[in-house]
Amino acid sequence: MAEPPFRTIAIVGVGLIGGSVGLAARATWPGVRVIGIDARDVLVSAVALGAVTDTAGDVSAALAADLIVLCAPVAVNVATLAALAPRLGPDAVVTDVGSTKRDIVAAAEAHGVHGFVGGHPLAGAETAGVEHARADLFEGATWYLTPTARTRGTLYERLHRLLSQIGAHPAAIDAETHDRLLATVSHLPHVLANVLVAQAARTRTEEDEPLPATGPSFRDITRVAGSNTAIWRDIYLANADALLDSIDDALARLTAFRATLADGDGAAIGAWNDAARDDRRRLLEGDLAGGEVCELRVSVPNRPGVVAEVALALGRAAINIADMALYPAPDRSSGYIILWIAGAERAAQAEALMADLGLPVSRA
Amino acid sequence: MAEPPFRTIAIVGVGLIGGSVGLAARATWPGVRVIGIDARDVLVSAVALGAVTDTAGDVSAALAADLIVLCAPVAVNVATLAALAPRLGPDAVVTDVGSTKRDIVAAAEAHGVHGFVGGHPLAGAETAGVEHARADLFEGATWYLTPTARTRGTLYERLHRLLSQIGAHPAAIDAETHDRLLATVSHLPHVLANVLVAQAARTRTEEDEPLPATGPSFRDITRVAGSNTAIWRDIYLANADALLDSIDDALARLTAFRATLADGDGAAIGAWNDAARDDRRRLLEGDLAGGEVCELRVSVPNRPGVVAEVALALGRAAINIADMALYPAPDRSSGYIILWIAGAERAAQAEALMADLGLPVSRA
Repeated sequence: MAEPPFRTIAIVGVGLIGGSVGLAARATWPGVRVIGIDARDVLVSAVALGAVTDTAGDVSAALAADLIVLCAPVAVNVATLAALAPRLGPDAVVTDVGSTKRDIVAAAEAHGVHGFVGGHPLAGAETAGVEHARADLFEGATWYLTPTARTRGTLYERLHRLLSQIGAHPAAIDAETHDRLLATVSHLPHVLANVLVAQAARTRTEEDEPLPATGPSFRDITRVAGSNTAIWRDIYLANADALLDSIDDALARLTAFRATLADGDGAAIGAWNDAARDDRRRLLEGDLAGGEVCELRVSVPNRPGVVAEVALALGRAAINIADMALYPAPDRSSGYIILWIAGAERAAQAEALMADLGLPVSRA
Repeated sequence: MAEPPFRTIAIVGVGLIGGSVGLAARATWPGVRVIGIDARDVLVSAVALGAVTDTAGDVSAALAADLIVLCAPVAVNVATLAALAPRLGPDAVVTDVGSTKRDIVAAAEAHGVHGFVGGHPLAGAETAGVEHARADLFEGATWYLTPTARTRGTLYERLHRLLSQIGAHPAAIDAETHDRLLATVSHLPHVLANVLVAQAARTRTEEDEPLPATGPSFRDITRVAGSNTAIWRDIYLANADALLDSIDDALARLTAFRATLADGDGAAIGAWNDAARDDRRRLLEGDLAGGEVCELRVSVPNRPGVVAEVALALGRAAINIADMALYPAPDRSSGYIILWIAGAERAAQAEALMADLGLPVSRA
């Protein structure tokens, strides 16, 4: 077994992400010491799970570690960093796992914490508790790191090695680019979901009619509406300028489509919709190895367990499902499954497996 | 077996919906005659499935039926209605299944087709072909009907009876209200999905950085991006004014949130997010019997078939899943399942079943 890049790791905020870091580190290097810092009841769970070896209620305890991982909401991490800054040793390495990066990178700079490298694993959900922590949470996950011109190479290398060895794929990105990208692919979608449910709820009140069964597109687009307020208020505020740019871009695009629609320009609407189809396909392909993403539509009849049969058949064949969507019939017991499979050959194999199960399947 | 409300049904456009009407009618009344009118290759499939008993390539063949169901895209249905109008007998009943209702209701009025009642089943997807047709597609589905002041009661009653007997829940709504509701819960979500993928694709090009793995919120909200252009161009155009209103409302809400965000007003952002959470919950509850919807978060480890295990366990217990979402880890083999279960008691039962499977579960 390789020597651990850090012998003592302090985790400030032991939720899903922090707990999983602890579990993964301990699974990789059984001798590693993991100090959990959080509220008492959280630490009881963390100890029971084996996510931490030591516990503390005060952030000062983190000073005993050679790696400090800040795993609380963004604003809390910034405050913790400021509080620890004057007492950090010259070789202390500090990182975080927050969804926005400029604030904390700027705070590290302002407080002269040159041992800080920002991080953001694209895994898990910030709202979940330590009871969901898992040693394999980061297996295959992109883990952004935001080194700056001041970052010492040896420090970055140690952190990179830690993350690689617990299964993540570290990727360097500057904090500015990170925040702009996340504004588009995560923060704006949350805002739009909130806008849509507000509009729909108001329609219902005004119309004095029940809303129709909200179809799959409405459920998909509003699934993240009203996500954990404490977390998301922080994210919106921390990334306000990038999110404002993203909102402005969305307003401009929506206004442009509005004009096309008001003109009744069918050809332009068609071209716009075709472009969206191409964009979606390319974005999905970009996420994956395996080339072209094929969309399969599988009809599932009204019999129990059929979704399970589909999942099992594909699982046994080790077919990688890029994405899936269920379009249940109103009684929820039947409907369609749309499967996006990377690679024409794998898709053909999936198609054959569905046919073997007697399920009608077609390519979109 | 009850006497069929119609002895001969003509289906103009035999796709998923048309084919399922044929299958359902024939399953309910084996003696019913179903005339399918469509392209030759479509009719070959429809006959093989048993969805139709007779076939024709020309819409005139529909005149032999006592019920004509228009199941093509909206604009085609309007044209077909206009073509048939002068030759329809006084007792002919005509309906349609289009996603927008004012156009065809107005066309029926303009052409004096007083035997017309517009319809829209909230089941299936317009883009799917006849090979996915099923006799039970409408089981439990809301089927909107748009009678007008001129609609004869006997005619409406026969159509209502047909739909009830094939398992649907007919519900009267005026065409105007229908189109306004659908603009909010279906058409606008499609527009926003297109806007988001366009923005994300442009970000990627400009940044010269690969987009990050697009998280679950992005995949959820953009799943319907670029849906079938022929169908959706028609829907957007047919419902342009209601959709314009819906877009204007979204622009106003997004602009208001933009102002709050620019002010950095954390309390207002929090209140806005809390309201969205409440709105989503109430909208989901409105769709369902069974009262309060509970959200369960189930962690699923990195082992094949675990999603299937979850589905089977809930299926065996006949627990009604209002909605579900998969949040896969980057390697797609593990992650979370969020289950929305109607009724606190059923949710508790589901929670216990997940615990029996050894899967960590918590309530949101």
